Parts: sequence; structure tokens; C-alpha cells
Amino acid sequence: MFGTMMTQALTVSSLIAHAEKYHAGTEVVSVETDGTTARSSWGEAGRNARRLMSALDRLGIDPGARCGTIAWNNRRHLEIYFGAAGGGRVTHTINPRLTPEQMIYIINHAEDQVLFLDRTFLPVAAKLGAHLKTVKHVVLMGPRDEEAAAMVDGLVFYDELLETGDPDASWPDLDENAAAALCYTSGTTGNPKGVQYTHRSIVLHSIGGNQPDGLNIAARDVVMPVVPMFHVNAWGTPYVAAHAGAKLVLPGPNLDGESLVRLIDAEQVTLSLGVPTIWMGLLAALEKTGSKATSMTRTVVGGSALPPSMLREFRDKYDVDLVHAWGMTETSPLGTLNQLLQKHTDLPEAERLKLREGQGRPPWGVDLRILDEAGTPLPHDGETQGELQIRGHWIVESYFGQEASALTDDGWFDTGDVATIDADGFMVIRDRSKDIIKSGGEWISTVELENIAIAHPKVANAAAIAARHPKWDERPVILAVPVPGETPTEEEIRATFEGKVASWQIPDRVILVEDLPLGATGKVLKNKLRETYGDVLMDQA
Amino acid sequence: MFGTMMTQALTVSSLIAHAEKYHAGTEVVSVETDGTTARSSWGEAGRNARRLMSALDRLGIDPGARCGTIAWNNRRHLEIYFGAAGGGRVTHTINPRLTPEQMIYIINHAEDQVLFLDRTFLPVAAKLGAHLKTVKHVVLMGPRDEEAAAMVDGLVFYDELLETGDPDASWPDLDENAAAALCYTSGTTGNPKGVQYTHRSIVLHSIGGNQPDGLNIAARDVVMPVVPMFHVNAWGTPYVAAHAGAKLVLPGPNLDGESLVRLIDAEQVTLSLGVPTIWMGLLAALEKTGSKATSMTRTVVGGSALPPSMLREFRDKYDVDLVHAWGMTETSPLGTLNQLLQKHTDLPEAERLKLREGQGRPPWGVDLRILDEAGTPLPHDGETQGELQIRGHWIVESYFGQEASALTDDGWFDTGDVATIDADGFMVIRDRSKDIIKSGGEWISTVELENIAIAHPKVANAAAIAARHPKWDERPVILAVPVPGETPTEEEIRATFEGKVASWQIPDRVILVEDLPLGATGKVLKNKLRETYGDVLMDQA
Repeated sequence: MFGTMMTQALTVSSLIAHAEKYHAGTEVVSVETDGTTARSSWGEAGRNARRLMSALDRLGIDPGARCGTIAWNNRRHLEIYFGAAGGGRVTHTINPRLTPEQMIYIINHAEDQVLFLDRTFLPVAAKLGAHLKTVKHVVLMGPRDEEAAAMVDGLVFYDELLETGDPDASWPDLDENAAAALCYTSGTTGNPKGVQYTHRSIVLHSIGGNQPDGLNIAARDVVMPVVPMFHVNAWGTPYVAAHAGAKLVLPGPNLDGESLVRLIDAEQVTLSLGVPTIWMGLLAALEKTGSKATSMTRTVVGGSALPPSMLREFRDKYDVDLVHAWGMTETSPLGTLNQLLQKHTDLPEAERLKLREGQGRPPWGVDLRILDEAGTPLPHDGETQGELQIRGHWIVESYFGQEASALTDDGWFDTGDVATIDADGFMVIRDRSKDIIKSGGEWISTVELENIAIAHPKVANAAAIAARHPKWDERPVILAVPVPGETPTEEEIRATFEGKVASWQIPDRVILVEDLPLGATGKVLKNKLRETYGDVLMDQA
Repeated sequence: MFGTMMTQALTVSSLIAHAEKYHAGTEVVSVETDGTTARSSWGEAGRNARRLMSALDRLGIDPGARCGTIAWNNRRHLEIYFGAAGGGRVTHTINPRLTPEQMIYIINHAEDQVLFLDRTFLPVAAKLGAHLKTVKHVVLMGPRDEEAAAMVDGLVFYDELLETGDPDASWPDLDENAAAALCYTSGTTGNPKGVQYTHRSIVLHSIGGNQPDGLNIAARDVVMPVVPMFHVNAWGTPYVAAHAGAKLVLPGPNLDGESLVRLIDAEQVTLSLGVPTIWMGLLAALEKTGSKATSMTRTVVGGSALPPSMLREFRDKYDVDLVHAWGMTETSPLGTLNQLLQKHTDLPEAERLKLREGQGRPPWGVDLRILDEAGTPLPHDGETQGELQIRGHWIVESYFGQEASALTDDGWFDTGDVATIDADGFMVIRDRSKDIIKSGGEWISTVELENIAIAHPKVANAAAIAARHPKWDERPVILAVPVPGETPTEEEIRATFEGKVASWQIPDRVILVEDLPLGATGKVLKNKLRETYGDVLMDQA
């Protein structure tokens, strides 16, 4: 017996259509590539997105075609998000920090038919040009620019392209399981892999992720995604902001602390989202400028491990609630968010902080489990570590262009992380499973060792790796970057671990290095470190 | 090109499965039919719901069969909600305030195979017995009870039925477009009509309706639905509370103000939902008991027009935010919720209150329009009145058992209300379209006239109706119930309209009556009043 309710497709266009109709006057503030500030609105964003859809039709871009973007967080990028996807094409965001070789691979693999660029990336595009096999048009995201036209043959200008679109175009009906957006993983090994989000997965991620215990974005909020729009759709914030009708502040190219402080105070930002590095810069700039960021009520942090002091500094100095979240390109990304339960209200402050440093619990819509190496599910007791797997409405099933499923035989996605989960679902990432140190059958978390090393006043940054060991198979070694002007001794740093971890977890060696090798998304390339330092303990008896 | 994300069905069982796994220890507090308080949890509710599903299999209830309930808000009713629907059957909630004839019609029309009853309703069931054509089993929602067994042949006891179910039963895969719940409209004219919600419509209503600008229920909340579970699924709160993992307080049969004050204070209720009459009783009881309801942060009110003073009284005396919402059985019910926008922040207090007295704006997922009598869309200017239509993910398409669509040719549901909508989507119900007074081509809202009449200190209740008029077609007449002991004059009451409405909107007559005829859901039966008083102006020249 089937029910008798209306069924409408869950589409990305329905999000912007809602914003255009019910939040037309709410601002979209955009820092442009030249540093100026443009003031737009959801009404204008909606109209431009519909017009862009129509212009892409007239430009001859195929239905379902991928539309590449190499761009900052700005209003035209927002319009492309909705204009490409809403018209039945696929918004393919490209990380500009990739090497030219990786970008060529990705653009050809995605078969992008059009490439939208901010002016910053014109030189890159000029270099890629000859290697791109499917791109029919390169579009500069701005008005006509003769200097740019001279750099790229046949360059199209976004503002002129918009003019060719029908201002009365209306969103077509689409299948909710059609592709809407494509994002490649950073892939520290092998070729990058594409995750192709569907209209349905994006809408469910938006409304499922924006619950009161989730991103919690209301129409009265002023939301500033600092996390790039080329990085897992800025964690979904453009979609969520449209859906909620919130004011959106797109910070453009300058993500240094002082630029962010100026924007927060000028636009009265209430919520911002980004990685820990960004917040370290922001905290330093707040200190320097004396701003109290009075409009801010919360920040969402994810993408890498959270320095424990950051929660306290935001709360104590600025009355800002820092919400730790976890996810991956493959998970859209919201996998967990850290909001405590009623039962935690009366816990001692230190225990509450400790809980909030973890990655949090899954919202409805996703489910987690941990397994041992034999694939047996492990207890959710907050102590047992296992390989973290996830499934749900916004989790990848297979990578773009690959027939094989990306899932386990029973339908879960293996995150490649090692984690603990407690009885309420609070999850703590202990390590990447390829990084964790397997010493005599016990697992040692490199993340935990790194946090301790970085807390040492003479250490600016640190990475822990598994070094091969003739007796224990693997043992921990720390690569430490000293604070400029300091030269800590190995023993001095090793001493800092005492009492903080079990004695058998204390690193065997600490090696001072000038810097750590970083990948395109800012993550330390531990495989490179293991190549260089993996055998330093092989002379141990 | 299809995307490559996991697709899982959106099912009601996924809501309780999430609560059982991630919020197992969170309480479900239930006032039982005998007045005692039972303390359960989402863990137990989930286990019992799965067990009930299995017990219904063994009882021989067909897949897809409707399972009727005549019950208060309590924990067993909650378990039936999920146990019936999660197992692929349909939870059919029946309003016990209907006449026996209406109940017989509804149960036979729905072809209920099983009927779950609270003890209160045993005498009703005993009376219906012989007239029910499809009911195989009647289940008393409680433990074995010999006195009850003597009243109904073959009576089954819920707690014993549960014991027959498999405690390890797991939720089956279901089609998300399958029916999950059935509720009949009150239907002041003609036979009641059934709205059959699907798993998909309920899940989308839950996550779409629980946004920060919606019900806004977090895991830390303590939610008390006073609106009955037989009335549009208690506005969806059982589903939303499971999804959010909030503590649920189910108030049972006693909905008087003092009982509610005791529950609010004992259980630290943060949010409650109900109709204005309930809140009038609560405000009186707060005044009487001296409770400040300190745990309460907000109430959601809907179901009939909001007395303007109520918003201020809740806010000023108890720091409780009263959120006005609007919906119907056909809209699941959330059609609009009243949360202001950033732009309203600096409005004068009186204007903010005026806005908040309206029904609010639609969340993403539903869309509104107003039409004139010729079917032409009218402007959203906050002034033009038109017939209100709605469409969206949780709006009815056709009534249960009817082949004909319930929609307009272009796919909208006509609510039968007359409303204004402003540019931001803030909607104000002006009247039922069958009630509105059409005087010489102009429309006069009966709701507005009633609010003015009720504000008169000597008037306890009032209804405005369209009386036929030889010159103007229709003119307003007020039926007023005096405050006990008072005998206001007609002129005294008519004078109260002066300056509050245009002079041509002032009622032609005010007639004092002892009481007003009410339907099963507490609404005034204006058709009855029109039968009696519709011709009182026909002697006017």
C-alpha cells in the first residue's frame, strides 16, 4: 500500500529557489579576487544562477556535463554551484593547490566541458591549456578584461556570459539521484579519486546536517565559510545557507587572521567554519587587533586534529563556542559533530572539555562502527580502538568513473581512520589506520604523541611516524620543528611525554627537522617522512 | 549521469533506530492512563517497538494493514507509532472525541485489523464492537486486567502481546513511499477523509521541520507534546524527538493547567506544543501555583488563532518564547512557523509582536501562494487576501482510498483558508474561505472580528458569521457568549469595534448566546451557527 503524499525531487535548485523567493533581500557579501567587497543577495544569486543555467545551454555545454571551477569563496562561485547543478550539470570544484599534473589529470578524468576561473588562477590555466582534452570554454569569473583575454585564447567573461542567459529561465525537473557536484580527494598516494554527490545526497546532508545539534544555522545567522568552496563544497555551507536563508559572507582570497577579523566585525558574522590553522591565525589577530569578535557565537572546526587549548581560548576570551566536527570528501562531509547531551551537564568542567575535544557523535542520517583487523565489530565503550566505518544518506558508494563499489561487502565505507566510540556515539579519531604505530601488537596513536610534542614550548610543529623496529615491528619516532631561535634537546622533548602516556608509548627518538612536507590540503605527508626516517631504529637490538 | 552516493530509504524506523542506538539512556517519561508516571527510555522504546513489530507478525496482522489507536499521549502509544510503521504497517490514530458513528465509519473505512486502546476508551470500544467489520483483535494498552477482559470478547493485553515478540527482531527494508501513518480530518461537513503519510514524507517533515527556525529540538531538550498523538501525529513531535534524541514527556490524559505545571517543573520541560486553549489553562495554573516554569524556553502554539496577549504574557512573566505555527492534517502539519528575520531586529517592539502574531513563514520543503476567485496568483504584499494554497514534500496528494487527486490541476493543495503573505513569506490566516464574509464585493475576516469581540471584558467567547443580506449579499453578525454574571448590551459590544476596523466592517448585529457549538477538535461549528442565525438580517432594507 503506497501512501498518498506529494512526491517532489530533492534537488539543489529547490534550495536556491527557496532562498530566492523567501530570503530575496538577505545579503550575500563577497570579497572579490581584487580585494574589493561586493554586496549581493539571495534574490540576485538566485536570478543569476538561473540565468547562468540558461547561458550554459546556449554555450552548448551538454546536459550532465561537468563544469570545473578553480576559484575562491565568492559570489560568482556561489552562482555556479547552483546554476550548473540546478540546470542538470555537475559543479566540479578543483583544488588550486594541486600540482599542474594533478589538475590536468583531474580535469581530463572528469571530462570538464567548461572551466570557470578566478583571475588569480589565469596563469595556471594558461599552463594547463594544451593538456586539457575536453574543455570547450574557459570562463574568467569577472567582467571583460583585455589583459586576461590576451593570455588565454577564446577566453569567455562570466559577466558577459550571464548577459546571454534568459533572466526568466526556470529550474527544470531533475531526478534526485542525478549527479550535482564532484570533488576529488587529495589522495596522498595514487591518482585522486572523484566523489560525485547527488541532488538527493546534498539536500539530505543540508537538512540533516543543519539540525540544532548540527550546524544550527538560522535565517538570523551571518555565516562565513572560511573552508574553501573547492574543499568538499565548503562543508556544505553554501547549500545550508540557502536553505536556511542566512546571510552569507564569502571571504575571497585573503584568509589571514586580520582580514578575517575585519570581515567578522564589519559583517557581524555569527558563525564561521574552517580548519584549526585558520583559527590559530584568527586568535592571533584578535589578540593583536584587540577585537572581541562580539557578533561571533560559534565556530565549527574540522579537517585535522583540534589543539586542546583552542576550545578554551575561544570560550574564555571571546565567548565563542568551538564545535568540533569530523568528515571526509567521501562523507559530504558531516560525519560527526560535537554537541554534548543533557547527561553531560553536571560533569566536571575538565571532563566536559575532554569530551568536546573529540570528534563528536553522528547526526541522524549516518551510522558508525569500529572493527578489528579481522572485520569483527568492536564494542562502543570509549576505549576500544578499531577501524572506523560509516554508512548513511550522504556517504559515497563508488568513486566517479569506477564501476567497483567503494564499500565493504556489507555496505559500509571504510574511512581509513582508527577511532574509539563511546556508548552515546561520541567518536574520537585516534589516527589514520595507515599511520598508527603497531608496536608489539599494541596500537599507539600518532595524533596523541603529536599533540603532546606540539604542547612543548620549544616545538612549533611535530609529526609522529612508525619507524620499523627489529624487535617490536614498529616504534614511534617524532620529527619536531623547533620554534625559531630554539634548539631543544632530544631528551628534553622525550621528557615531556612522561606521565602523559604509558611508558611503552614514549617515542624512541626525537629528530629535529626544519620543516614537515605538506600535501595540497595542508596535511603532513607521513609517507614521505617514513621514506626518509622509517629505518632510523633498525640498528636497535 | 547518475551520482554515486549510497541510497538508503527514508524510513520511520530509521528515526527510532538512531534514538535506540545513540540516545538509549535518554528518558521517555509517560503519564499512564491511571495517572501514575512511568519512566522509560529511547533504548527501551526502540526495543519494545521492534518486539511489537514481531508480535504483530505472529498475531497475523497483514503487511501494510492499518493498526488503529484510540489513546492518550503515553509510552505504549509511542511504541505503536514506530512498531506498526517500522514493520511495514500503518499507524492509524483515531480521535476519541469523535461520535461513535464517526469512529465506526473511520475504522471500517481504514479497514483497521487491530485496535489499540487505552483503558479510558474501553467502554467506547465495547459499544463499537459489533459494527466493526475488519478488526481482528482489540488490544488494551496495559498489563492483563480481568475486569477489562470481561468487557470485550477476546481482549488482548499489550504487555502480554509484547512478550510474544522476538526481542532480536530487526527493522525490515521498506520502500520510502510506502504508507506509515494515517489520520482522518475532522471534517465539519461530509465524511472524514484520511491522509496517509508516507515514510518519506514523515522523515522529510521531521528533519525539514526541526531546523533552527523550526521546532529547533536538540538532544538536550525536554519536549512535552500536549497536542494529542491522535491529532496529526502530535504535530510530528514523536518522530522529531526520536531523530534528535531529546527527552520526551508524554502527559497522558490530564491536560489541565495544574497537571501540566507539575510535569513541567518535575521533568524540567524546555519545550511544549499545543493549542491556545491549553496555554490559557497553563497560564492560569502558573499564576495560581506561583510556578515560574523556569526550565521552559519556548512553546509552540497552533491549531487555532492566537490570542494576541498570550505572546506577551509568556514572554514577560515567564521568559518563554511563544512560537506561532500553522498547519493542517493535510500538511503533516508544519506549513509555517513564526521566527523573525535579521531585518526585523530593529523594528519597534509593537511591530515585532504584530508580526509574531501571524502564522509565520514556510520552511524549505513547502511553498505557498494565494489566488483570487478566478485562480489568478495574487501579490505577496502582506495586504492582498487570497485563497491559500500549498505544495511540498509533506503535503497530501490524494485522500486515503480516493483515486481522485486532492490537488489543483497544477499540483497545489487548496487549504480552504484565506490569507495574506508578505514579501518574506510571512503568512497571516484571515479566515476560512467558507467563513469569510463577502460584503458588497469586499472580504471581511471573521477571525479579526472575533478577536476584537473576545477582547471586550464582558465577552467570554464569540463567533462571527456571514449573515445573508438583501443589499450587500452578506454582512457580519456576532454571536457572543457573555462572561458569567455579565449581560452586555448589543450597542456596548458593537462600540468596541469602532476605530479598530473600517466602519463598513463593523458587525450589523451582536446576538448574545449561552454557548457556541463545537466540533470534535474543539473548533466552532460555524455552519450550525449559519443555519440558525444566517437569516437574521433578511428583513433589512
